[in-house]
Amino acid sequence: MNSEHNKHFSELLNRERKKIDKILFDSFDNRNPDTLYLPAAYILKSGGKRLRPLLVIFSARAVNNQFKKGYYAAAAVELLHNFTLVHDDIMDNAEKRRGLLTLHKKYDINTAILVGDSLLAVAYETLLMDCSGDSKKIVSSFTKSLVEVCEGQSLDKEFEMRDNVSVDEYLMMIRKKTSALFEMCCKLGAILGGGNANQVKALSTFGRNLGMAFQIQDDLLDILGPEEEFGKISGGDLIEGKKTFLFLSALSLAKGEDEQALLYVIKHKGIRKNQVYKYRNLYARLGIFDLAAVETQGYFTKAQHSLRRLPDERNKFVLEWIAHSLIKRKK
Amino acid sequence: MNSEHNKHFSELLNRERKKIDKILFDSFDNRNPDTLYLPAAYILKSGGKRLRPLLVIFSARAVNNQFKKGYYAAAAVELLHNFTLVHDDIMDNAEKRRGLLTLHKKYDINTAILVGDSLLAVAYETLLMDCSGDSKKIVSSFTKSLVEVCEGQSLDKEFEMRDNVSVDEYLMMIRKKTSALFEMCCKLGAILGGGNANQVKALSTFGRNLGMAFQIQDDLLDILGPEEEFGKISGGDLIEGKKTFLFLSALSLAKGEDEQALLYVIKHKGIRKNQVYKYRNLYARLGIFDLAAVETQGYFTKAQHSLRRLPDERNKFVLEWIAHSLIKRKK
Repeated sequence: MNSEHNKHFSELLNRERKKIDKILFDSFDNRNPDTLYLPAAYILKSGGKRLRPLLVIFSARAVNNQFKKGYYAAAAVELLHNFTLVHDDIMDNAEKRRGLLTLHKKYDINTAILVGDSLLAVAYETLLMDCSGDSKKIVSSFTKSLVEVCEGQSLDKEFEMRDNVSVDEYLMMIRKKTSALFEMCCKLGAILGGGNANQVKALSTFGRNLGMAFQIQDDLLDILGPEEEFGKISGGDLIEGKKTFLFLSALSLAKGEDEQALLYVIKHKGIRKNQVYKYRNLYARLGIFDLAAVETQGYFTKAQHSLRRLPDERNKFVLEWIAHSLIKRKK
Repeated sequence: MNSEHNKHFSELLNRERKKIDKILFDSFDNRNPDTLYLPAAYILKSGGKRLRPLLVIFSARAVNNQFKKGYYAAAAVELLHNFTLVHDDIMDNAEKRRGLLTLHKKYDINTAILVGDSLLAVAYETLLMDCSGDSKKIVSSFTKSLVEVCEGQSLDKEFEMRDNVSVDEYLMMIRKKTSALFEMCCKLGAILGGGNANQVKALSTFGRNLGMAFQIQDDLLDILGPEEEFGKISGGDLIEGKKTFLFLSALSLAKGEDEQALLYVIKHKGIRKNQVYKYRNLYARLGIFDLAAVETQGYFTKAQHSLRRLPDERNKFVLEWIAHSLIKRKK
C-alpha cells in the first residue's frame, strides 16, 4: 500500500479512536465513589492503541458498510482488556505500564483488585447498551472470552513455575490469554453488524489468527524492538525469565552449551541486563528470529485468507490494513 | 409458626440446596487448568447457606407456583457472591472463612485474584444458561448489582481510612455492598418466573429490605452471637476497628468518657480482645442493641409488607419463612 493509503487509513482510525475514547472517558463521569472511579479513569486515560475496539467497529462494517453503531460494545472490550491489564500487573508485580506507574504501584493492591473488578462490571454494563435482539449471543461471546482470558493467565502463571513447558503448550496459552479476546472482538462486530453465520465465522477466524500473530510479534519486539521506549527494556522477557515463543523454540532446538545457557535462565528465573546480548546472539544463531517471523506470517496469512469470505467492501480493507500494520510494527 | 412448619420448610430448603449445589459443583468439572479450577472448587465446597440462590428459586415460584427452573441463575448468584468473598478476603487480609483458610491463605494472593475473576466469569456463563427471551433484563440486573457491590466494597474500604463516617453513609454502603445482591436475587427470580412489573418491583423491595435487615443483624451477631464458632471471635468487628451500624450509632449518641472510648477505637484502628466486654457494656448502656433491633425490625417489616402485593401462594410463605429465620438467627 502507498503512503496516501496509509495516511487515509491512519486518519480514519484516529477519528474512530476519538469516538471510542469519548465513551470510555464518559463511562466514569457521574459515578461514585471517587476512591473507586478516579483510579479507573487513570488507567483508561493512560493511553493504548484501542486496537480491540477498532476490531469491533471495523468487523461490524466489514459485514455491513452502512453500520455506524457498535461504539458501546467497542468500549466494552477495551474495558475488559484494561481489567485484565490491572489484575495481570498485580500478579506480575509490574512497575510500569504505558510509561506510567501501574495502578497498584500508584495506589495499592487492594485498590487495584477492586478497580479491576469494577472495570469488568462497567464493561458488561457498557456492552449491554449495544444489545438488543442478539443480546444473549453477544453477552455469551464476551463471557466466553473472559473465561478463556482467565484460563490463559492461569496457564501463564503456571508456566512460570514449570520447567518443562512445550512450544505447543505456549501456543495454547496465548490462544486463550491473547487471541481469545481478538477473536471475540471480531465476532462481536460481525454479530452487531448483522453478519450471517459464515461471515461471523470468517471474522472470528480472522481475529483468532491475528491475535496469535500479534502475540508472537510481541515476543519478537520485546528483544528486537527499540530500547527503553515507554519504560520497556529490550530483552525484558529474558531478564524476567519468561517462557516466550522465542525462548521455548530455542530450548527445543538447542544442544550442548546453548541448551545449558537456556536452562540457566529457567533455573535462575531470569538473567541480568548485560547478558541479553548473549542470548540475542544465541537466538540468531539458532534461527529463532526467522522461525518466529515465519510463525507470525503463517497466522497472518490465515487471518488474511479468512477475509476472502467477506463481501468486497472498503471496511474489509481497513481490517487488512490494521492486521498489516500490526505485523509490520516496530514497537 | 409451629415446629412442624419449621421442619417442613427446612426440608424443602435442603432439597433445593442440593439441586443448587449439584450445579455449583459441576460447574468446575471438565474445566482446565486445574491450577485455576481446583481452588475455585475449594471455595465453593467450603459451605455457605446458599441463601441468595434460594431467594432466586423462591422468588420465581412466588410469582409462578409451577415454575421449576431457575437453578442456573441461582447458581450464578452464588458464584457472584463467592467472587466477592474471595476478593474481599484478600482486601481484608482475612485468615478464615467458614472455618477454613481463606483462598489467598491456602494458596496465594495471585491465585485468589484470578480465581475470583474466574468465579465471576463462570457466574455470567452459568447465568446465560437460564436466559432466553429476557436475557437483556436478566444480565442487566445481574450486572447492576455487580457494579454496586464493587462500589459498596470501595466505600467500606474508604470508611476504614476516614474518621467521620455517619450512620447514613454506613446505610448507603451496606445498601450497595450487601443489599444490592439480595435485591437482585429476588428481582432475577421474579423476572425468570414471568412476574409482571408490579411483582418484580415487590420482590425487589423485599430483597432490598431483607438485605439491609440481614446486614445489621450480622453486625449485631458479631458481638452478641456465640463465641468462636466457625472461627469467628465475638466482637471481631470491634477488635478490627470496623465502623459498623452499632459502632457508628454509639458514636453519634455517646458523650464524655463514652465518646472518648469510641474515638480510641478509631484512633487505634481496633481494640484488644479483652476490651470487648467493656464496649459491649457501653453499647448496652447507650441502648445500641435495642436501636439495632428496632432498625432490623423496621427493614424486616418493610420486606414483609412488600410480599402482600404478591399472589397468596405457598412459595410466598417460604420467602417469609426465610426472612423470619434470618432475622431470628443466632449465628
